Amino acid sequence: MLFLIGLGLGDARDITVKGLEALRSCSRVYLEEYTSVLSGGKGALESFYGKELIVADREQVEQRSEEILKDADKEDVGFLVVGDPFGATTHSDLVLRAVNAGIPYKVIHNASILNAVGCCGLQLYNFGETVSLVFWTETWRPESFFDKICKNRQMGLHTLCLLDIKVKEQSVENMMRGKKIYEPPRFMTVSQAADQLVQIIRRRREDEPGEELGVTEDTVCVGVARLGADDQEIRAATLGQLVSCDLGAPLHSLVVTGRLHPLEVEMLQVNAETSALDHLTMVDSSTYTS
Amino acid sequence: MLFLIGLGLGDARDITVKGLEALRSCSRVYLEEYTSVLSGGKGALESFYGKELIVADREQVEQRSEEILKDADKEDVGFLVVGDPFGATTHSDLVLRAVNAGIPYKVIHNASILNAVGCCGLQLYNFGETVSLVFWTETWRPESFFDKICKNRQMGLHTLCLLDIKVKEQSVENMMRGKKIYEPPRFMTVSQAADQLVQIIRRRREDEPGEELGVTEDTVCVGVARLGADDQEIRAATLGQLVSCDLGAPLHSLVVTGRLHPLEVEMLQVNAETSALDHLTMVDSSTYTS
Repeated sequence: MLFLIGLGLGDARDITVKGLEALRSCSRVYLEEYTSVLSGGKGALESFYGKELIVADREQVEQRSEEILKDADKEDVGFLVVGDPFGATTHSDLVLRAVNAGIPYKVIHNASILNAVGCCGLQLYNFGETVSLVFWTETWRPESFFDKICKNRQMGLHTLCLLDIKVKEQSVENMMRGKKIYEPPRFMTVSQAADQLVQIIRRRREDEPGEELGVTEDTVCVGVARLGADDQEIRAATLGQLVSCDLGAPLHSLVVTGRLHPLEVEMLQVNAETSALDHLTMVDSSTYTS
Repeated sequence: MLFLIGLGLGDARDITVKGLEALRSCSRVYLEEYTSVLSGGKGALESFYGKELIVADREQVEQRSEEILKDADKEDVGFLVVGDPFGATTHSDLVLRAVNAGIPYKVIHNASILNAVGCCGLQLYNFGETVSLVFWTETWRPESFFDKICKNRQMGLHTLCLLDIKVKEQSVENMMRGKKIYEPPRFMTVSQAADQLVQIIRRRREDEPGEELGVTEDTVCVGVARLGADDQEIRAATLGQLVSCDLGAPLHSLVVTGRLHPLEVEMLQVNAETSALDHLTMVDSSTYTS
């Protein structure tokens, strides 16, 4: 049996009892660490689970999954994913390979950023399509997520923005020379994400003056960091204010709000910076229409 | 401290280790059972958790929350929610009352139907706004969710439909007579939900012949039942086919698909009835555009 086990968000103790039991029954356990990380990392997980973990990188999961699936028809193999196995990143591909090889599989669910973000006070069923922000390079500065956020906002919906993670990436130079030397991991911060959005806003304002933008520096946003961990941070403020915020260690996510219900405003105020609070009060009375 | 603890989906063993530890440290533990249920119910949970649970009904949570919050500034009180505390139902109201009373709170996340539904193979970031279907009465037959589904589909997005639960409801007669007699609990099935959608389609077709409908009997849908439990069911088929499906005991949810990616189609086929499989293959080549 292939067990796909969600580890949840936060730390080692966020695994479910069912997940922990399954994991301990496995003869081999892989840890997928390239789409998300938990505080403490592999060492902390191993000591709490009482089990040695094999780190599976993207290349192994996507191109050498036969190693992972080896003998999984005769014994139990665990595949651990931070969050939920079908959360922000879907591991459908691995499941399909198992199915095609006649290997039964079982999913043990857990919290994902896609539902846990609800703790900031925004109602989950008022979220539209989720978007991803990637690190821009000199030559690649995609903006399509911005239009999706605007589309969601037009319908009054909030947008969860998943922020880029670069783990075990090679520089172009090392890749071309075939050197397996990897760059240090990078995790996009709320501040960097907000800055990217503000850059898009400014460029569009210059290119199309007079055009009304769906998102501005004054749009109410929520930055979240290390959700589920003891030191989680939730910061409600305007997009412009978030450019200069420091929410600490990874992982970060950003929410761009849509139409705010009074109860949502009240919850955001619990997590608002004082300077953003007045603004939110104003939003309360001016933008909410049932 | 007020602990809001998600129980996840499935059974008692789907609680997280962190949640179980917190729960056991509490002097009183409430179980919110009016928005969702776990297999086995209160008895199974109590015996696994080793703790007596107090069932909190909607009236108590919404109108008499001071009982729940009593002394929570001095001792630990647990509030258990099936799924995630901020999942399909948000318990912001209880949190705000705690905050206003100066009571610290902590959320322990878990899987919610809003992320766990990803295991059917549809990618979560391609879901649009979530909708709710309620039991129709003779005089109240809301259809607004239908238009939201169509809007999501227009943008290529899937729609998660949460299906109505009636627990501890009084009949109008008993309510008028002030009799606290409650009707047996009712849980909407995938079949009932599909039937409701088909009724709307037929009515609109009669009212506005020639008008192209955003959802038809041939739209690919996925019925899910008891997600996370050992006997979970996932059934991919056309909406018309789902009208006559029987997915067994509650809880059920329905997904109306939008534009399907080939990898999503492959995953759906794993869970498809043979008769729906050909249709899905057709959808694969005809409706997917990147």
